[in-house]
Amino acid sequence: MQSIPDSFRDLLTAEFATLATVGKWGGPQQSLVWFLAEGDVVKLSLNTSRLKTDNLARNPVCSVVIVDPKNSYRYIELRGKAKLEPDPDYAFADKVGAKYGADLRQNDKPGDKRVVATILVDRARGYPSND
Amino acid sequence: MQSIPDSFRDLLTAEFATLATVGKWGGPQQSLVWFLAEGDVVKLSLNTSRLKTDNLARNPVCSVVIVDPKNSYRYIELRGKAKLEPDPDYAFADKVGAKYGADLRQNDKPGDKRVVATILVDRARGYPSND
Repeated sequence: MQSIPDSFRDLLTAEFATLATVGKWGGPQQSLVWFLAEGDVVKLSLNTSRLKTDNLARNPVCSVVIVDPKNSYRYIELRGKAKLEPDPDYAFADKVGAKYGADLRQNDKPGDKRVVATILVDRARGYPSND
Repeated sequence: MQSIPDSFRDLLTAEFATLATVGKWGGPQQSLVWFLAEGDVVKLSLNTSRLKTDNLARNPVCSVVIVDPKNSYRYIELRGKAKLEPDPDYAFADKVGAKYGADLRQNDKPGDKRVVATILVDRARGYPSND
């Protein structure tokens, strides 16, 4: 696990991230997602009926971009792998919901299931870089 | 080529897009990019020294996300392939520069080269969808 550069850690309080996965056609898929940061660890609550969840179950490599809501030139990219774990009782989904003032059950259809996707980061880089 | 849904075409005037490519490690790479829309066609000016350009030269499949600057819940994802063409005299880079009030030569080091990346779209989808 690589940690997030100190000078970009404030972005972990942002609302949105862009998640990129690799589809079975060999190309990337991107979507905007809610996320929750626990310390330096970015976690997502994903509905198992979605393409991104399918993609990660087959191929866990992914990229997460979080843009500074006040300055779109400033962002972090986290590359790594997503570890998927069942969230049968919405315990984690409810934590995400608390951040957004939302009940994630209302986004789901009856019978839908959720997983927690924990992003295990191989490479964390902020832009513009301070190097 | 698939065209962009009418109800999302306004996003083509936005400032930023997120480009996802597939790296040689088999995972996605994302970065924020400037872009220019010519009609429905999204084009990027890319420096050939960058990882994203390398990735597209090896594997042209890509995804471009453009988020509504006024509403981060509203965005389009374009999936397709990037056609790369040399831009030796910065003719296209200068068109992009005109959109942003910038001279892209100032982003480049001596000897850097640029290409035009034209996104040939297989799939265009707006979110939230109107379906």
